Amino acid sequence: MVKHKKGPKDAGLPPGTLIHVGEKKTETTKISIIDYDEVHIQERMVESAEECFPYKDRPTVTWIKIDGLHEIDVIEKIGRHFELHPLVLEDILNTGQRPKIEEFEDYIVIIIKMFILEQKGRIDAEQISIVLGPNFVLSFQEKEGDVFNNILERLKKGKGRIRKMKSDYLAYTLVDTVVDQYFVILEGLGEKIESIEEDLLNNPGPETLHPIHELKRMMIQLRRSVWPLREVVNRFERSESQLINESTKPFLRDVYDHTIQAIDTIETYRDMLSGMLDLYISSVSNRINEVMKVLTIIATIFIPLTFITGIYGMNFKYMPELGMRWGYPAILIVMALISVTMLVYFRRKRWL
Amino acid sequence: MVKHKKGPKDAGLPPGTLIHVGEKKTETTKISIIDYDEVHIQERMVESAEECFPYKDRPTVTWIKIDGLHEIDVIEKIGRHFELHPLVLEDILNTGQRPKIEEFEDYIVIIIKMFILEQKGRIDAEQISIVLGPNFVLSFQEKEGDVFNNILERLKKGKGRIRKMKSDYLAYTLVDTVVDQYFVILEGLGEKIESIEEDLLNNPGPETLHPIHELKRMMIQLRRSVWPLREVVNRFERSESQLINESTKPFLRDVYDHTIQAIDTIETYRDMLSGMLDLYISSVSNRINEVMKVLTIIATIFIPLTFITGIYGMNFKYMPELGMRWGYPAILIVMALISVTMLVYFRRKRWL
Amino acid sequence: MVKHKKGPKDAGLPPGTLIHVGEKKTETTKISIIDYDEVHIQERMVESAEECFPYKDRPTVTWIKIDGLHEIDVIEKIGRHFELHPLVLEDILNTGQRPKIEEFEDYIVIIIKMFILEQKGRIDAEQISIVLGPNFVLSFQEKEGDVFNNILERLKKGKGRIRKMKSDYLAYTLVDTVVDQYFVILEGLGEKIESIEEDLLNNPGPETLHPIHELKRMMIQLRRSVWPLREVVNRFERSESQLINESTKPFLRDVYDHTIQAIDTIETYRDMLSGMLDLYISSVSNRINEVMKVLTIIATIFIPLTFITGIYGMNFKYMPELGMRWGYPAILIVMALISVTMLVYFRRKRWL
Amino acid sequence: MVKHKKGPKDAGLPPGTLIHVGEKKTETTKISIIDYDEVHIQERMVESAEECFPYKDRPTVTWIKIDGLHEIDVIEKIGRHFELHPLVLEDILNTGQRPKIEEFEDYIVIIIKMFILEQKGRIDAEQISIVLGPNFVLSFQEKEGDVFNNILERLKKGKGRIRKMKSDYLAYTLVDTVVDQYFVILEGLGEKIESIEEDLLNNPGPETLHPIHELKRMMIQLRRSVWPLREVVNRFERSESQLINESTKPFLRDVYDHTIQAIDTIETYRDMLSGMLDLYISSVSNRINEVMKVLTIIATIFIPLTFITGIYGMNFKYMPELGMRWGYPAILIVMALISVTMLVYFRRKRWL
Amino acid sequence: MVKHKKGPKDAGLPPGTLIHVGEKKTETTKISIIDYDEVHIQERMVESAEECFPYKDRPTVTWIKIDGLHEIDVIEKIGRHFELHPLVLEDILNTGQRPKIEEFEDYIVIIIKMFILEQKGRIDAEQISIVLGPNFVLSFQEKEGDVFNNILERLKKGKGRIRKMKSDYLAYTLVDTVVDQYFVILEGLGEKIESIEEDLLNNPGPETLHPIHELKRMMIQLRRSVWPLREVVNRFERSESQLINESTKPFLRDVYDHTIQAIDTIETYRDMLSGMLDLYISSVSNRINEVMKVLTIIATIFIPLTFITGIYGMNFKYMPELGMRWGYPAILIVMALISVTMLVYFRRKRWL
Repeated sequence: MVKHKKGPKDAGLPPGTLIHVGEKKTETTKISIIDYDEVHIQERMVESAEECFPYKDRPTVTWIKIDGLHEIDVIEKIGRHFELHPLVLEDILNTGQRPKIEEFEDYIVIIIKMFILEQKGRIDAEQISIVLGPNFVLSFQEKEGDVFNNILERLKKGKGRIRKMKSDYLAYTLVDTVVDQYFVILEGLGEKIESIEEDLLNNPGPETLHPIHELKRMMIQLRRSVWPLREVVNRFERSESQLINESTKPFLRDVYDHTIQAIDTIETYRDMLSGMLDLYISSVSNRINEVMKVLTIIATIFIPLTFITGIYGMNFKYMPELGMRWGYPAILIVMALISVTMLVYFRRKRWL
Repeated sequence: MVKHKKGPKDAGLPPGTLIHVGEKKTETTKISIIDYDEVHIQERMVESAEECFPYKDRPTVTWIKIDGLHEIDVIEKIGRHFELHPLVLEDILNTGQRPKIEEFEDYIVIIIKMFILEQKGRIDAEQISIVLGPNFVLSFQEKEGDVFNNILERLKKGKGRIRKMKSDYLAYTLVDTVVDQYFVILEGLGEKIESIEEDLLNNPGPETLHPIHELKRMMIQLRRSVWPLREVVNRFERSESQLINESTKPFLRDVYDHTIQAIDTIETYRDMLSGMLDLYISSVSNRINEVMKVLTIIATIFIPLTFITGIYGMNFKYMPELGMRWGYPAILIVMALISVTMLVYFRRKRWL
Repeated sequence: MVKHKKGPKDAGLPPGTLIHVGEKKTETTKISIIDYDEVHIQERMVESAEECFPYKDRPTVTWIKIDGLHEIDVIEKIGRHFELHPLVLEDILNTGQRPKIEEFEDYIVIIIKMFILEQKGRIDAEQISIVLGPNFVLSFQEKEGDVFNNILERLKKGKGRIRKMKSDYLAYTLVDTVVDQYFVILEGLGEKIESIEEDLLNNPGPETLHPIHELKRMMIQLRRSVWPLREVVNRFERSESQLINESTKPFLRDVYDHTIQAIDTIETYRDMLSGMLDLYISSVSNRINEVMKVLTIIATIFIPLTFITGIYGMNFKYMPELGMRWGYPAILIVMALISVTMLVYFRRKRWL
Repeated sequence: MVKHKKGPKDAGLPPGTLIHVGEKKTETTKISIIDYDEVHIQERMVESAEECFPYKDRPTVTWIKIDGLHEIDVIEKIGRHFELHPLVLEDILNTGQRPKIEEFEDYIVIIIKMFILEQKGRIDAEQISIVLGPNFVLSFQEKEGDVFNNILERLKKGKGRIRKMKSDYLAYTLVDTVVDQYFVILEGLGEKIESIEEDLLNNPGPETLHPIHELKRMMIQLRRSVWPLREVVNRFERSESQLINESTKPFLRDVYDHTIQAIDTIETYRDMLSGMLDLYISSVSNRINEVMKVLTIIATIFIPLTFITGIYGMNFKYMPELGMRWGYPAILIVMALISVTMLVYFRRKRWL
Repeated sequence: MVKHKKGPKDAGLPPGTLIHVGEKKTETTKISIIDYDEVHIQERMVESAEECFPYKDRPTVTWIKIDGLHEIDVIEKIGRHFELHPLVLEDILNTGQRPKIEEFEDYIVIIIKMFILEQKGRIDAEQISIVLGPNFVLSFQEKEGDVFNNILERLKKGKGRIRKMKSDYLAYTLVDTVVDQYFVILEGLGEKIESIEEDLLNNPGPETLHPIHELKRMMIQLRRSVWPLREVVNRFERSESQLINESTKPFLRDVYDHTIQAIDTIETYRDMLSGMLDLYISSVSNRINEVMKVLTIIATIFIPLTFITGIYGMNFKYMPELGMRWGYPAILIVMALISVTMLVYFRRKRWL
């Protein structure tokens, strides 16, 4: 199940109050700095926020990756140095945000949701906040994950376009990685849906109801994150900010197409799940019907016969049939005839 | 349950007729004046409408907070002095309004709904009318509540941005507080939904139907207030009125984002409640099915057996089996065989 | 139930053919003329269409109120004198129109539906056609009603704004009165809905189905009239015609808000009725379930017991148990044990 | 039921290939020419396509009415002479088109669907293609029908506007006649719906299911033709083509209003049919419920009583009750008490 | 069932990485070159990508048809020579794309889905990528199919418009052929729907549920491909690219109309399938109802009668009725009367 976070902030606090709404952890916030241009690349882990400061105005591209949001003062120091609006910092710390993009004069803030498949089919949502500056990218996330590792690899290997391009391309790569992650999740869910559907067609039972419901709920949650993402990526692509180079635009268009495709897939899955629920309900009805028919046939045949045996089980003194020589076989034959008649009737009613 | 108010006005009255549609109370209308600039702050309670008049043209920011709408003449006097359009006064008094914003040359009127969680899970809706003037804010509400108390606190403490900014920021703060209040309500409802859902998965029963229905109804009512709010906040933010300073815009954008998020949450809850109703109905069907199966199995096994005992309970004189030595044990074995055959059949039909 | 009128005109007739589609009545068409300015007011009933003619070009505001549409030649004469387009006259006479507004160079035509609550909960729809000219307003309706009486009162008393304003304000007042009437209807329906809902929660029965269905149907019909009204009022407000003064605009905006609120209320009621139907169906399912459970429990306990009595009711000669001293009490104890076991089983299955 | 036609053309054929998709008939194509101005009118039936040619450039208005589309060469000759685009001819012949309008430099093509009520409640759809040229109108239809007869009448009688106006008015008249025809159909369906609804309320049975389904299907088909018609008429009205005179515009607006009204009616009927299906399903549930209750009451009362008779029907030697003087009446009284208790219980459960 | 392909690419790979997501095949990629102008035409199969290169700049129209996408280096070479953007090549190879159109300066890329009816009612989807250049068209598809064969025929025969027009007309022809193919599929599905509906009306059974579900699923998949196609064709038609000649526009409008019609048909089928599912469920309910009624009638009549026989089967010593001469016939008459009374009651309840 998708865990959900709470609303924007505690009611009544002044706007811009920095409060981290996630679980408090004891680990310290981890800050990694990756600084590169076409020729050089340097990766270092730093202890204090202050060590990031000099990278703000370097001509090289710098990616400052902050894992862990519970040390508010660290975040605040970075925010102040990089001149972020207080409301931006509030949004970064408050991990229950809706995906959004906000353009400021000197930087663009993108907040999106990453989904990670955990054990036992659970999906975990994490907020990724990306600040794109002229020659730096700040990325904030709550937990340290390995999703961005391959970007690091590509940077280090110097392969591909990434080392030649500017910070906007790095920000694009982060967003693209998150969107690609959606397809990993969706593929897993797609396989689950297909296997449930097969179950439903071959062998419907009450145990298929819960997984359908769970998947429907997951879709509601995924949808909630992916629909606004579409708007975010679209506005990212159409942005007229100086920060985004013309050569990055086709890539943004590409990630937009992928977002649309993710939405498309989610809507298709929703339709399929609705169809499966209908199928489930109809199958259950069919089963009740079948059970009812067996009961009806058995009862309808035997109730009258039992009545007949009841008649001849009565203890009246004067019941002439009881004394007859052929009474017993005759009544057996009568009962056999009644049964056959009924079976024929049911056959013609197509209940058998 | 959300209480609802009546329509716009009594049919046939001329427009601008001032009628208060809420319950008549005997308490007098309470007027508080909070007058402040960056350096000074003064709070006083006044007895008569006339005491508010001098604040209209002072350079300091003045918040005139009117609690209680039943003394129409007080409201009317204030309205006349602050030069409000008669239709605006009508809207303020008629607490069944739809959330709306209306811009006039000298002031902006915002009418929104506040929700307050009351005991026993009831939600109470109250209309808040805010008039934003060049250096004053009038706020009208029916009942005295404590929702705006922390704004007062912040004003008095002089902490944060609020004392440095103009009346538009004060109006924003009021709207923001009301929107934050929505999340308090929504969180409570969210917890209820989750607990009902858990019930539904582990232990579905007829008693879960009513809370689902009640929550659905609440969603309908909340939705009705929050959807138009979106438009209100959007137009507030995009307003080109002189009354709104550029520096307040990011805050308005923020409250707009929160409104969207509230709508999002409501829609998600609606989807979840629909899913839960489907789940409930299917669970009930499953239960009927299960009960039917037990009945069918018992009846189908015993009805034929009882028929056999009926046969040998008949009083015919000439029934050779009755006199046989092994008749009784034989018939018992026959009946046992019939039962076993049926059980095997049911097992293969997967009804057991 | 809402009565409905037929389509636009008899198929195949040339456009502009004047045919009145309502019931033919024997009463004559009633024409009232109310002529006023800020100082004077005059009301008279006239016999012939010709008497209206001189009022066309007077500087005072003239309201010509025509009740009854069956005397086509009267309508036609008025139409010709006031230079109305033949299609306008066709629309006025053909009372099955969809609400609409049409602007011509010299006049604006507004066609709307008025709803009147009749005895036994029936709602009757009537078409009101309003022609707004430079200094006259023509209003056409089929039946003489008392809805517009209070406008007449206000005019005569000379109270309020109405006597000072022009013909556009009079037209606005007519529309406003009709829209206010909607809220009277909606309030009545709202009360009905609430009382049915209470029934449904406390005491659901098959007799609640019909009123829900009836209300749903009414909503369909109301909706059909109110949705286009929104467009009509909106276009009335946004009209750039010379006929509408700037000072009337806020009032038109107000009536637009009321229309939106009426639509809102209708949609909310529709949602509530859908929810109630779901609730109804679920309640019925629950009832079947409950009935089934009682049947199952009784049958499941007694069918095996009856089978046992059947066994010892057989007439086999050699049944050793029958001769035993404690056979009868023993078998009674066995049957008691079986019952108790079953009751425990049902209890644990939570069917009891 | 509405018959449907096949798709646009056989897959793989080059565009513009002329193939008539309807049934092949042996009758020849019928061509009527109606040529008129304000003073003269002439009607003639012609044998060959060539006879139409001279009418192309005459100053009088000419209506060339082609009934029957199976003689492709005739259509092709006319098409070539009147300089129609090959794709237009393809659309005319391929009677499975979606309603559409296409403007060319010298002519406008309108393709719409006419519905004709046939015996046994069937509705037959026919494609009408109208080509509006500077002073001619070509109309193509598959079968000769009598729908356009009254237009002919009006032309001949010289009554009304039609003889004074140009070809655009004639085209309008054709479209108007087709739209009017919709109301004839819809009125018939409306009456059917009302009669079924009455049945449903008074006397619901399984035989009402099929007509509801049939009407729903008809609505789907009607809707499919009428929705695009709206766009067609709208674009016809808004066309800036030289072919359409300003004085025809109000008439086009009128037919547009009628189209909207037809759509409105269809949507209302759809809503009503959905409501009726819900009502039907609920009524069926109610009936099952009622039947179940009778069964449950009978079974629940008699099953325990029968069990008691079973006990005293056992043949144990030592059953002290059997020998008692008042055993039989006592047991009868016990059974009566059990029945009464149960009836009281059911009454309180409100199952009786 | 419609097979579906996976998402856009493996998560985490850099954009523009060329990976073919379909099944790997051992056959080599087949490249056909059709080069023509109004006078000459030449068709050849080439072995290597390099042989296509000279055709890039020839004044004649060249259609390079690539069947098979698994030899990535071949595709890559062609892509590089024809100067395609790396993301375009990625899209061509990754056959799980959503239909789309992308305009570049020198070429237009169109990606659409073709559906092929396979044996056993399965529908197979294949991605067709079309690159339209100034005087060439590249078409990429995974499997060699015969759908484009008739285009080849028409080209060779030199019939029709196709040889006289430019590359844009060729691209149109490819798209048109794919869209025409949809109607072949839809017609097949339409026939299936009608036959199932007939089954449903005459002879509803549980075996009709699965085909309805299957068709619904197919519709979901078809819809997913056809809806975006609409946008693709629309933007193709409205493109202001130099590559598209004015004379091709009417043809593009035509294929757009066909796309709309395909969407229309799919939506109609979806509506019809929903209606059929409702009908199915109602029919099943009706059947349960009917079965229940038979059971109820039989049980309700015989349960009390059997109880009576039970009474007189008891072995009490003192049962005066047993010794009476007319006891037995009297009790038979009583039972007959009870049966008749009940039958009359059922008849009046209209259960018989």
